[in-house]
Amino acid sequence: MKFETVEKTVAVIGAGAVGLLYGSRLQKAGLKVQYQSRTMAGIRKLEVDSIWGKEDMEVEIFDSPTKMSPADIILITVKALPEIDYNSLIRPVWKASSVLVLLQNGIGNDEKIHSLFPSNPLIGGLAFVCVFRDQQAIHHLDYGRLVLAPYGKEKSIAKELADIFESVSVPVEVSENLRKARWQKLFWNIPFNPLSVILQASTEEMMNSKHAVQLCRDLMQETKQIANAEGHSISDDFIEDMLDKTRKMKPYKTSMLLDFENHRPMEVEAILGEPLRIANRQNIHAPKMETIYHQLSFLEERNSKMKG
Amino acid sequence: MKFETVEKTVAVIGAGAVGLLYGSRLQKAGLKVQYQSRTMAGIRKLEVDSIWGKEDMEVEIFDSPTKMSPADIILITVKALPEIDYNSLIRPVWKASSVLVLLQNGIGNDEKIHSLFPSNPLIGGLAFVCVFRDQQAIHHLDYGRLVLAPYGKEKSIAKELADIFESVSVPVEVSENLRKARWQKLFWNIPFNPLSVILQASTEEMMNSKHAVQLCRDLMQETKQIANAEGHSISDDFIEDMLDKTRKMKPYKTSMLLDFENHRPMEVEAILGEPLRIANRQNIHAPKMETIYHQLSFLEERNSKMKG
Repeated sequence: MKFETVEKTVAVIGAGAVGLLYGSRLQKAGLKVQYQSRTMAGIRKLEVDSIWGKEDMEVEIFDSPTKMSPADIILITVKALPEIDYNSLIRPVWKASSVLVLLQNGIGNDEKIHSLFPSNPLIGGLAFVCVFRDQQAIHHLDYGRLVLAPYGKEKSIAKELADIFESVSVPVEVSENLRKARWQKLFWNIPFNPLSVILQASTEEMMNSKHAVQLCRDLMQETKQIANAEGHSISDDFIEDMLDKTRKMKPYKTSMLLDFENHRPMEVEAILGEPLRIANRQNIHAPKMETIYHQLSFLEERNSKMKG
Repeated sequence: MKFETVEKTVAVIGAGAVGLLYGSRLQKAGLKVQYQSRTMAGIRKLEVDSIWGKEDMEVEIFDSPTKMSPADIILITVKALPEIDYNSLIRPVWKASSVLVLLQNGIGNDEKIHSLFPSNPLIGGLAFVCVFRDQQAIHHLDYGRLVLAPYGKEKSIAKELADIFESVSVPVEVSENLRKARWQKLFWNIPFNPLSVILQASTEEMMNSKHAVQLCRDLMQETKQIANAEGHSISDDFIEDMLDKTRKMKPYKTSMLLDFENHRPMEVEAILGEPLRIANRQNIHAPKMETIYHQLSFLEERNSKMKG
């Protein structure tokens, strides 16, 4: 299979800030993109305020995928929440030849998507990006690197997709080990997302406190034990390197803290629940992760009652 | 030694809500009481709004113990903070025959007081009480039971003191095992005080969430391991009983949450730090307690910068 960029169609499902940002890059690369978003539906002009350039883009955003055309590439950027019905979201834009790209946090959903659409090529994606949106615009403040990795043997497709993104300034790394890539992102998401909510703190505030740094390191150590029990051989150097990088980042609020503050659901299960279930299957004890899981679940329950 | 109530003098050192409440009971019982409090110094009339009765009391409150007379009973109710200099607080009101009563949360300070004043009788005290104060008054809303236990062989003194308190409606239990009594109170203080601050929640909110209850139970289990390593044989029934009692309590904000909200220092070390140091000496692993210790320390550091 070889992409012919210009003719290809894309459906972005669950287009929040991440979906709109990367979808708009594909549009910029010449692909025909349609978006599904309940909250942005109907907007015809999207202001993209990105470190890769600022421009107004014509967009087609639908509230439901049933109003969209079947697509060659289905970019799934819906938040990783347990209640999401992937089948009813994806089926309307699905073709037998559709390439599925799952751009999400957490772990465990590649397997779910593959079991729903076992014959379609599936690429897992991870976005390392600082981006948020408001009603008319997306604001891309920093970073933006993608990691793309085939779920099965679709490495050539991942590379073609990487080429498209790179043609419009998006740094992309193609990885051969999707599961390991998911774990590597969790090393950051497991400590920093939940603790930012529990402590109401930016990354900078956390990195300036020896107590918070200790806690992050401890949580990464537990993550390492679980990941390595799955055979990924991640080292302590990786942990220290990630702490160093976070120390050097410009201070920001994690996406989970932004979700919490806006009374939107948080990815508690994708980021903590599923790793804990894997730990349990692997007979690994992760008590600190359990502690923040229960704390975050408490906050999520209370926060959901304050919604709208 | 036998107390002659009417002639006995009392110095209450660090008279916050707890010191003023129990000091005023001793005054009511006929003892001559002087108080030391930096924030309440100079007040001549204290409004005591208590479930044991409401009245205005004439009080003598000094900013420094150096202005007070040596006392037969020194009731130490200063908050259990690492920076407290007990010697300079107690020495001015000290006599060779003074009975020291340490009415505090946490663990480890009985030993400290005994090493400073090894020849004086020392009674450890625990207050199970819901009380707070404002500038002119103390408000005693619920409970009020005291547990008194001799540090050494002063059981008869503990009993005499209990008799005085009971003569003015204070329920008192005399225990023979001070260290065990300290641990038993920690079973409540370790989960509920820190989590109330971290989760910004009342006891009722916590008891209504299966996640918070699970966390409390887990923390009590770690507490049990440490206490029992010291030889106290506390059972799971004790834990479930304490959870039941908390479920039935009327909802309230813990004293630690009130301290936090008012930017006053919290007893982080007395309630979590010292139990963790004991765990370390006993080779007990308490990862969930460690997690909330680091979280609370982070919050304490940030909160202390917002002071005044």
